Amino acid sequence: MSSTRLDPWLASYAERTHGLNASAIRALFAVASRPEVVSLAGGMPYVQALDLDAFGHTVQRLITERGSVALQYGSGQGDVTLREQILSVTGLVGVHCHPDDIVVTTGSQMALDLVARIFCDPGDVVLVEAPSYVGALGVFRSYQAQVQHVGMDEEGLQPEALREAIAGLSRQGRRAKLLYTIPSFHNPAGVTQGAARRAEILSIAHDAGILVVEDDPYGLLGFEGEPPQAMRAQDADGVVYLGSFSKTIASGLRVGWAIAPHAIRERLVLAAESAVLCPSNLAQMAVSEYLATQPWMEQIKAFREVYRERRDALLESLQALMPASTTWTIPAGGFYSWLTLPEGLDSAAMLPRAISAMVAYVPGTGFYADGQGTSNLRLSYCYPDPDRIREGVRRLATVVEAELELAETFGTSRSSDHGPRAVTPGPDLR
Amino acid sequence: MSSTRLDPWLASYAERTHGLNASAIRALFAVASRPEVVSLAGGMPYVQALDLDAFGHTVQRLITERGSVALQYGSGQGDVTLREQILSVTGLVGVHCHPDDIVVTTGSQMALDLVARIFCDPGDVVLVEAPSYVGALGVFRSYQAQVQHVGMDEEGLQPEALREAIAGLSRQGRRAKLLYTIPSFHNPAGVTQGAARRAEILSIAHDAGILVVEDDPYGLLGFEGEPPQAMRAQDADGVVYLGSFSKTIASGLRVGWAIAPHAIRERLVLAAESAVLCPSNLAQMAVSEYLATQPWMEQIKAFREVYRERRDALLESLQALMPASTTWTIPAGGFYSWLTLPEGLDSAAMLPRAISAMVAYVPGTGFYADGQGTSNLRLSYCYPDPDRIREGVRRLATVVEAELELAETFGTSRSSDHGPRAVTPGPDLR
Repeated sequence: MSSTRLDPWLASYAERTHGLNASAIRALFAVASRPEVVSLAGGMPYVQALDLDAFGHTVQRLITERGSVALQYGSGQGDVTLREQILSVTGLVGVHCHPDDIVVTTGSQMALDLVARIFCDPGDVVLVEAPSYVGALGVFRSYQAQVQHVGMDEEGLQPEALREAIAGLSRQGRRAKLLYTIPSFHNPAGVTQGAARRAEILSIAHDAGILVVEDDPYGLLGFEGEPPQAMRAQDADGVVYLGSFSKTIASGLRVGWAIAPHAIRERLVLAAESAVLCPSNLAQMAVSEYLATQPWMEQIKAFREVYRERRDALLESLQALMPASTTWTIPAGGFYSWLTLPEGLDSAAMLPRAISAMVAYVPGTGFYADGQGTSNLRLSYCYPDPDRIREGVRRLATVVEAELELAETFGTSRSSDHGPRAVTPGPDLR
Repeated sequence: MSSTRLDPWLASYAERTHGLNASAIRALFAVASRPEVVSLAGGMPYVQALDLDAFGHTVQRLITERGSVALQYGSGQGDVTLREQILSVTGLVGVHCHPDDIVVTTGSQMALDLVARIFCDPGDVVLVEAPSYVGALGVFRSYQAQVQHVGMDEEGLQPEALREAIAGLSRQGRRAKLLYTIPSFHNPAGVTQGAARRAEILSIAHDAGILVVEDDPYGLLGFEGEPPQAMRAQDADGVVYLGSFSKTIASGLRVGWAIAPHAIRERLVLAAESAVLCPSNLAQMAVSEYLATQPWMEQIKAFREVYRERRDALLESLQALMPASTTWTIPAGGFYSWLTLPEGLDSAAMLPRAISAMVAYVPGTGFYADGQGTSNLRLSYCYPDPDRIREGVRRLATVVEAELELAETFGTSRSSDHGPRAVTPGPDLR
């Protein structure tokens, strides 16, 4: 905690709060939200692409005609009509199940929190990709789980690294409870597991008795061909699948879901009721009405086009402007590219200078629990328009060039403070 | 868990899930939701009393005109405009603070969950009234806290019982971290602490270094005179105040809040971000627009009139129809009366017979963590109209009379299974 005021309750806090950290990076992002700064930091979907008039009228009709239900408490598991409709959405990534297998949550972040709540005792090991989603690291830390990173390559999580991690734990007489993975259009790495790799990872997890938590917020936002088939499509018993409408409809609704094997799902519902009683009927029924009456598949296509154009602007600018020794991933969908700075540069140390130059990104260390990522940073292309993205990359390239010159003159710019580790996600870090 | 299927993940669940319980009572309530059953069980507010047309148009305009914000992620702490408006609401119960002291949550249930999350280690003692809100018992249990009940009388929590509980713990070398209390229009007890009692309780808690968690969902729903002034109005440093729009606007929005001392508030925000990233902007801004453009004070008055008429129907029917040895509390506001059955009758054992007679209530044991409450039951008058309430009480009186006759003939009807203990609240138990 950054507070310097005397806190009379300091001795009363639970052990788990010791992992709660508001990083100094928050203050930087407050500056970065000024309109003159091009933010390549935040993961905000471009909800402006929605037909707001149509959505407004949908919700108005819902409240006027069915307000006595929409404004009332609902079921802890979520609205049954919406759960049926979710099956049409997950069908696109090959996931078929019974509506009873679905738990609707206040965004898929809550689903992840509930999974950690019902599985993670303090000290339990959770395997996550290196790097991984900031909000997942925060959840696992808040339940005092021990996060162990597993290496990735251009096709995502490496099966061999997974085998080694499991074997290493086994040699210590330990085992991981969960493998948390984002197989499609990874946040922050911008990579995607192929079908064969998914199958291999499932097989390894199955043999080791590890439950796979598949986080799939971006699965329908691929830029070419059919959406990748979810891991859950291949394994109904060993996977908890997390889905979200935040990127395919609107994040401000906070409607996500988990699909889980029967016994796990029962516990998720009980934990959800304890956490929030029930998800918002209004939000759920707004989604339900939208899916029933609006051309949602066309809308997702429109989102894809928006993001593909922005991805192209990012990649073309990086290619044209970045120093030769900088590398980055080529996302085939989703919101992010993962950039590696030239040897000797430190992304956290560079951030204040980038913000002075009116461009913002998220330093790599935020995506690791163990201090890795000093030479990495995450670039988001989801929110600014292509011209702003090009301008942002131009500014970033200038900063990197200047850092390189400094490093060549005075040696490494690497700072001793490696910035945020497993901070909670916050508005600009998700 | 009631599942009989083989669960391959049984060995993987966290310790805290052992406290998660879906009671057999759930099955009964599924039956009780049939329209021919008069449910005096659920705590659903009568949202039909809202002007649904006006609310629908408010939300439609919000989405059309400001959808790019309303449908986007927001701040983890909650919308700043709404936080300012919340001050006008809490001002009515004497609570004045800075908007920065407020954290908006997905219903006040989530605020309670977050408070427990940041304070309760396994085994920590939490003091709660006897009886207490089912959803609070569920939260404390889910964080493996030890719930210790403190006695009540017609004016709520008894200061002397509180002193004794604290002294008893002290003799064991222990102390409670939290005192959870519902001072106004208690759920389920239907009683209200007077001002002097509130001051005395605050003083006792202060001296013992115990943080008071004041849950106040019903504070504005008093039937006579001015609303009771909140405990937080007297003590800004020793109280976390929980408020909700579920009963003053609509429960389906899931908008509640916590007001907390600075350092606690910082931790609540971090915990909230980990739990759900941020509350729904749409729901928050819908509340904000409603407060800004609709006659919300008049609406609360209208709700009060609805509930007073229903309370009167309940009390008059109980007085006219119940066997002489039955007693109940006289609520001066809120949703509930707490009934004590004649000696020898068991409210859980009687429930199936009541449901057969087409009336439902919540047995008293659900409101205790320790098996008390066998002769009690909670009656809610918030949702059915006065005629239905009278019919429900008539049916209930018949069941009680029949039980009494049985007991007089065959001895006590007390069952060995005392029903649910600290179950999660569920749609019909809140």
